[in-house]
Amino acid sequence: MKIGVFDSGFGGLTVLRALLERLPGADFSYLGDTARLPYGAKSQATVARYAVSSAHFLVEQEKADYLVIACNTASALALDAIREAVPVPVLGVIDTGANAAQATTKTGDVLVMATAATVESHAYSAACGRRGLRAIEKASPLLVPLVEEGWIDHPVTEEVLQIYLSELLEEAAEAEFQPDTLVLGCTHYPLLRPNFERALPESIRVIDSAEVTAEQVAAELCLPAEACTPDGKGHSRRFYATDSVAKFRRLGSRFLGEEINGVELIDLGG
Amino acid sequence: MKIGVFDSGFGGLTVLRALLERLPGADFSYLGDTARLPYGAKSQATVARYAVSSAHFLVEQEKADYLVIACNTASALALDAIREAVPVPVLGVIDTGANAAQATTKTGDVLVMATAATVESHAYSAACGRRGLRAIEKASPLLVPLVEEGWIDHPVTEEVLQIYLSELLEEAAEAEFQPDTLVLGCTHYPLLRPNFERALPESIRVIDSAEVTAEQVAAELCLPAEACTPDGKGHSRRFYATDSVAKFRRLGSRFLGEEINGVELIDLGG
Repeated sequence: MKIGVFDSGFGGLTVLRALLERLPGADFSYLGDTARLPYGAKSQATVARYAVSSAHFLVEQEKADYLVIACNTASALALDAIREAVPVPVLGVIDTGANAAQATTKTGDVLVMATAATVESHAYSAACGRRGLRAIEKASPLLVPLVEEGWIDHPVTEEVLQIYLSELLEEAAEAEFQPDTLVLGCTHYPLLRPNFERALPESIRVIDSAEVTAEQVAAELCLPAEACTPDGKGHSRRFYATDSVAKFRRLGSRFLGEEINGVELIDLGG
Repeated sequence: MKIGVFDSGFGGLTVLRALLERLPGADFSYLGDTARLPYGAKSQATVARYAVSSAHFLVEQEKADYLVIACNTASALALDAIREAVPVPVLGVIDTGANAAQATTKTGDVLVMATAATVESHAYSAACGRRGLRAIEKASPLLVPLVEEGWIDHPVTEEVLQIYLSELLEEAAEAEFQPDTLVLGCTHYPLLRPNFERALPESIRVIDSAEVTAEQVAAELCLPAEACTPDGKGHSRRFYATDSVAKFRRLGSRFLGEEINGVELIDLGG
């Protein structure tokens, strides 16, 4: 069983990290389309074209049996296009986040923090709406650069997060929401999960989309028990980037939580 | 006389703004290669390929007589490739910044703040070195997202700038530098020029690369005086982007200092 994990960059490595913990007996190929990141500012047609070429690579070249789209923008804008383009099951992080919110919330009122592009797509609102939940989405564009700068336990990050969260909670109060769940709608944010938990009232639970995605992959695949326990065998973990292998190694190790060696550069055109 | 101005995104509009003030009688075409931004994280080969296709568009389609590369990354990594590819004069913002530093500094010790990619290229150090100056470059990756978030007069921005500048001044003291000049080595930073001037000791002059680039274009072109004075005629100002026209209009107006209407979407492939 080989699982292909795709993101525009490094953030999806937080999803891979959760998958590796839960499915140590599976093979993994991770593709970061770093030459064309960020997807966030791009149109749906462009994102779909990029995402489909990346999915083709993972399925045709890498022989992945299952695809995880660990990129919120691609999940929001290109999931249907990817599903049409490849003959394997495809799971996107927005549906997994919304599923987890549904399982967690008692009030039915959900908060989502994400990048500007994800918020503008309103994909979380739509996914929550289909599950009978109300959602308020808040763009927090400074969090990704703060994480990439490595300012995790840093007063500036605390202050920025405080500003975003108080704006979001104010908006929720005005809309007469009773939020008890906040979805981290960007694969960079799991690195700030403790910061979120410190800054939020205790009544609000934080949903880490990386973790819940890994849970749902394990459940959907109904894998034999051995795939879910370490078997001491060397299962393959391959890393591909479309540009800047050195940066991928350096930044990516922070997201994956372990050293990344042997990133291969591939050319998808563009 | 038509001047083509090229950047990977919106930042170069600060250069266009300075050019419009100084050369109101010239025609301008501005191209933001927004579908492929940011160039910063990409390899030299990729940046050169993107920049050359953009330069071809401005010269062949738009009939520009002169090109200003208002993008530090492209100036650092692709200036020679662009000069080989088009038959018109090409000016890059790194040389103009280094020229202005040379004209300003008395100690010969120059500080440069820029994005990570520009710093990693060491293009400013090299350009300063060729002019007999010493330079220390400092990456300040949070400033671009702060400007794009619109947090110009904001305590978080003051704090971030203070952190970067004190690290830079400390490094300068350790290297026994006597800096009297700081170059804003990113086209987003002119929007923070007052913040820089407030945060720096009075002994350090700030070089705004947008402004000095406009001065040098005017000087190099030896334009007839009428191009440098408003003549009441409607000279063309055309705007092109490779993606996300709405975002270009919204963000770009902040950089240009006036409303941008009529951005045209073009496809350069990729």
